[in-house]
Amino acid sequence: MAEHTISFDKTLSKLLEEKKYQTLKDVMVTMNGADIAAVFEDLDQDRTPLLFRLLPKELAAETFTELSPELQEHLIRGFSDRELREVVSELYVDDAADLVEEMPASVVKRILAQADPEMRKEINEILRYPENSAGSIMTTEYVSLRPQMSVAEAIQRIRRTGVDKETIYTCYVTKDRRLLGTVSVKDLLLAADDNTPVSEIMDENVISVTTLTDQEEVAQMLSKYNFLALPVVDTDQRMVGIVTFDDAMDVLVEETTEDIQKMAGMLPSEKTYLRSNAWDLFKHRIPWLMLLMVSATFTGMIISNFENALAAQVALTAFIPMLMDTGGNSGSQASVTVIRALSLGELELNDLPAVVWKEIKTAVLCGVALASLCFLKIMLFDRMLLGNSGISIMTAFVVCATMAVTVLIAKMVGCTLPMLAKSLGFDPAVMASPFITTIVDALSLLVYFGIASALLFG
Amino acid sequence: MAEHTISFDKTLSKLLEEKKYQTLKDVMVTMNGADIAAVFEDLDQDRTPLLFRLLPKELAAETFTELSPELQEHLIRGFSDRELREVVSELYVDDAADLVEEMPASVVKRILAQADPEMRKEINEILRYPENSAGSIMTTEYVSLRPQMSVAEAIQRIRRTGVDKETIYTCYVTKDRRLLGTVSVKDLLLAADDNTPVSEIMDENVISVTTLTDQEEVAQMLSKYNFLALPVVDTDQRMVGIVTFDDAMDVLVEETTEDIQKMAGMLPSEKTYLRSNAWDLFKHRIPWLMLLMVSATFTGMIISNFENALAAQVALTAFIPMLMDTGGNSGSQASVTVIRALSLGELELNDLPAVVWKEIKTAVLCGVALASLCFLKIMLFDRMLLGNSGISIMTAFVVCATMAVTVLIAKMVGCTLPMLAKSLGFDPAVMASPFITTIVDALSLLVYFGIASALLFG
Repeated sequence: MAEHTISFDKTLSKLLEEKKYQTLKDVMVTMNGADIAAVFEDLDQDRTPLLFRLLPKELAAETFTELSPELQEHLIRGFSDRELREVVSELYVDDAADLVEEMPASVVKRILAQADPEMRKEINEILRYPENSAGSIMTTEYVSLRPQMSVAEAIQRIRRTGVDKETIYTCYVTKDRRLLGTVSVKDLLLAADDNTPVSEIMDENVISVTTLTDQEEVAQMLSKYNFLALPVVDTDQRMVGIVTFDDAMDVLVEETTEDIQKMAGMLPSEKTYLRSNAWDLFKHRIPWLMLLMVSATFTGMIISNFENALAAQVALTAFIPMLMDTGGNSGSQASVTVIRALSLGELELNDLPAVVWKEIKTAVLCGVALASLCFLKIMLFDRMLLGNSGISIMTAFVVCATMAVTVLIAKMVGCTLPMLAKSLGFDPAVMASPFITTIVDALSLLVYFGIASALLFG
Repeated sequence: MAEHTISFDKTLSKLLEEKKYQTLKDVMVTMNGADIAAVFEDLDQDRTPLLFRLLPKELAAETFTELSPELQEHLIRGFSDRELREVVSELYVDDAADLVEEMPASVVKRILAQADPEMRKEINEILRYPENSAGSIMTTEYVSLRPQMSVAEAIQRIRRTGVDKETIYTCYVTKDRRLLGTVSVKDLLLAADDNTPVSEIMDENVISVTTLTDQEEVAQMLSKYNFLALPVVDTDQRMVGIVTFDDAMDVLVEETTEDIQKMAGMLPSEKTYLRSNAWDLFKHRIPWLMLLMVSATFTGMIISNFENALAAQVALTAFIPMLMDTGGNSGSQASVTVIRALSLGELELNDLPAVVWKEIKTAVLCGVALASLCFLKIMLFDRMLLGNSGISIMTAFVVCATMAVTVLIAKMVGCTLPMLAKSLGFDPAVMASPFITTIVDALSLLVYFGIASALLFG
């Protein structure tokens, strides 16, 4: 599909240069909002307003929603009030609320002035909810039915009011705004008798979330139950909106990207890579780099303490990187696995003993395998092939014993720290590779010099 | 929701012990298949067949689909042929195909024997497609309409045939099995005139995938366009099935987990953490650990080569971990960012020059900041506070210059290797932290000793 967009790019630019507006219009109406938005992003900003005005109303709104905040702002600044009103009135309420959140104050004022009073009220309601809550991503446009309606009446109501709703396929049966049950259009269409009241065919086992439920949890529930939408209720159990599957998919992708960024020692950023400039990247990367660099002072101090031992047994120094790297890798395997399982909801905090026990067994297997291979490598490669006679069998033993102990420590630290972080209310993702590596580095050096002191200089 | 499941757990176990089967049934029918499956997984396996038999047919199938392969196999082995037939006939074709793929040959034989001939044919068709292709995750159960049908006839057809279809909300207009357009139930219900032919209201700009399209690409398209389902066509452009959004969400989550596992130096595994035993974990973790350990031989060799220099300037050794860690962290920040952007489709291979240039600028900013902080740290902490007079200003300069150069190299290696891997047809995710760390370790030591030789021993 990417190739399609790229070739369209050229065609549209050419048509635009030649001022063939009718052809441009004919081409664009065959396209999808997301694709038109992708083309717009690649164009010179100043040419976008002209192209945008060629789009029919609904497609214009669809395209607008998919644009970057920068381009949205640029377009809005060029809009007349009438144009702005037209676009805003076509937006779904949740998209309008997203827009208001992204724009600077002066633009927000204009948007709210052009929204009709009903929409303005709904936008403000959504914006009241904390960031990343179900309330902040929900839409207030859903189909509600009354329990005593017949199937035929319900279908009538959908036909009459459905055009403005984000999804019509799941309808919500409410009484005094309290949610009694859900009924799908499939149930309505497949009902045997048009006169059956909705209350008889509705599903009363409603799974709902509250306005304050975390958006990641909402997304996981939608994914787990394969629902098209989840109803959102307030603290009085009154229905206030729905979260639809497409928003949930976006949340899943965003939250995972954030997790991955944190795991690699970066502050999370919502900008895509190509839209971030070097300064953005710097700001998000430097804090952890500095913190981790400074904390490596400990490893340095440990080595300084054993300088004399190292000077006496210079061969020991050469194995430091291998021991540190293997420890770091073992630890990050455990931590990343646990972090992912936590964020998918596969692990709970009370699984900690089971996790630790499993990691101990895994560490013993890995430790024995690595230590054996390492011993072979030192004997065959370093001693025989390279003829490095400075490495005694005792030195090899010290290295391999350190290897086994380091792997065990690394796996334990790797699996417990993320769970500890979570139980303290922190995000487990920051306890991933870089952080674990720094701790494991220090511990592995202590083990190394401890074993070396006992066996070689004892 | 997790708490709900846990408390249900106890209730159901208790009811089961007391043989209160009617109550059990009454409780379970209020639950969702996914939740019942979660309870089943926690129960003693031998008690599940009894509970399963209490479920009404449709809920039984829904629950069955959500169970782990181990428990599915256990249940099937206990089923009579009639029971197996009942469950299989209620499954959607794509779920049945998944089941057949997971089960051992003897069980597969029984399943296929109990499936009706039509379903058996469709299962076999799906299984013919390569793993991770659109064909392998599609379902063949969709609503097809003819172009000349009126809106009323279309709705009639949905009401008559919809009960067995995985989604009825997007219908596919075909002629001689060739896909002409799509029409949603929303369009049908909201159409002004019941006599309008479907061909007039259908959307002819159909976005489709082929049976061989990669499942990750399919999932990203569904997420990009916010579709409920995407049609799948064969090489002759004939429609063969659809991929629905719920399967796409599962694919997104699975593929991301695989990416994360690879990025942390593990072979990807489809088993959840709690279901993997220590041996499984060992098998997935040890190959990369061994490979990386052995490749650390190079770093060891570099250090050995400079043993004499290190013996003369023991203070240099203490900074090795800090330089290696900072290099590794800088490199993995770049590689992980690029890998994620590649897998989200935000980056293409021809963006490489732009990426390298951006990383160079970021590296210069990070390098200067880190080197300055490092110089301050050495001067104030190591020399003044710890009184380590062995560290000359020249040594501090060597360390800081190495730091800046290492960060630059690390960011360059980190951003280019994943893109190179992709252009060679490999998975970029394996080029993440551990791999980059090993390369950067060796390079940073070479830089360190190079600069030290020139400035300290020159």
